[in-house]
Amino acid sequence: MPHIQLETHLPGITGLLEYRQDSAQPIRELTQLLLRGESTLTEGERELIATLVSSRNECRFCTTAHTAAADRLLGESETCELVKQDYETAPVSNKMKALLHVAALVQKNGKEVTPEAVERAKAAGATDRELHDTVLIAALFCLYNKYVDGLSTVTPTEPAFYAQLGERITTHGYNRLKHGYDHLKKNA
Amino acid sequence: MPHIQLETHLPGITGLLEYRQDSAQPIRELTQLLLRGESTLTEGERELIATLVSSRNECRFCTTAHTAAADRLLGESETCELVKQDYETAPVSNKMKALLHVAALVQKNGKEVTPEAVERAKAAGATDRELHDTVLIAALFCLYNKYVDGLSTVTPTEPAFYAQLGERITTHGYNRLKHGYDHLKKNA
Repeated sequence: MPHIQLETHLPGITGLLEYRQDSAQPIRELTQLLLRGESTLTEGERELIATLVSSRNECRFCTTAHTAAADRLLGESETCELVKQDYETAPVSNKMKALLHVAALVQKNGKEVTPEAVERAKAAGATDRELHDTVLIAALFCLYNKYVDGLSTVTPTEPAFYAQLGERITTHGYNRLKHGYDHLKKNA
Repeated sequence: MPHIQLETHLPGITGLLEYRQDSAQPIRELTQLLLRGESTLTEGERELIATLVSSRNECRFCTTAHTAAADRLLGESETCELVKQDYETAPVSNKMKALLHVAALVQKNGKEVTPEAVERAKAAGATDRELHDTVLIAALFCLYNKYVDGLSTVTPTEPAFYAQLGERITTHGYNRLKHGYDHLKKNA
């Protein structure tokens, strides 16, 4: 049960973003910009960073939702699963392994990001901007994970819920739709 | 030395917010809303939450900057210092102790926020909205701390720098000023 009164048909982050819509707006904008805006990292790669961090924070809602998004963007579900298990042996580029490593360090604490971890990413071709965005995406998902679990929001168990949410954020992105989350309500 | 190339006269978060101004905008808006917007928590109380979380994440830049802000808002420097040392015995209300406890749990992991911690805050008079904002402020400062330290930004050592930054964020808030951080440059 959530720690505060939220609309019962809106699980996870969805109920929080509706609970306080004014603070939701910049959170949505930041996410849209970082995960869907112009970048030399693909949308799939950025969702892998979001998923890895959520998984390390053991936030089941965010992990499952962003796994669904990554799977849709990558067109298969093996890579994301292997990234969560061990990104060093997952079928991603050396640059992505190095960036996922940086993200994993940020999840622990910003100070954990060593010059060696950064040099490895740069040697594999990562730009300053990619390093910046990796750190900020990782930090943003720590915010999400702490927000979602800190208020003890509901975590649906039906895979259909996440399939639908994954479809929404890969086709419409993170901005608020006119009808909010009414489509989830219909299918709740 | 920062992990990416930032303007050398802009330490800590300031260089990052100038490095990518489009993502800085929603971060600034969210902070302004949560720390300076309408609330039943005073601005000083909200800065205490920001400071406690930054202190627990051992982010020296954010801790020192928000300590300066809290001190200015509270009109003295003892309370903030004691909150960082042990909020349970600090000279703040029972409601604030309970909310600071929730924030301290969020800093560890959202899942650490127990029904008991929430009940304690509610019994001391905390509203749902205050609990929501406490969790989101704590989550936001985890984002800041990871962003600032994850890119290894410079931490000034001169107290005058933080006094100036504290003055800025208590008088102008968190929105970007027309001249960016040029005033810091002049005094660097």
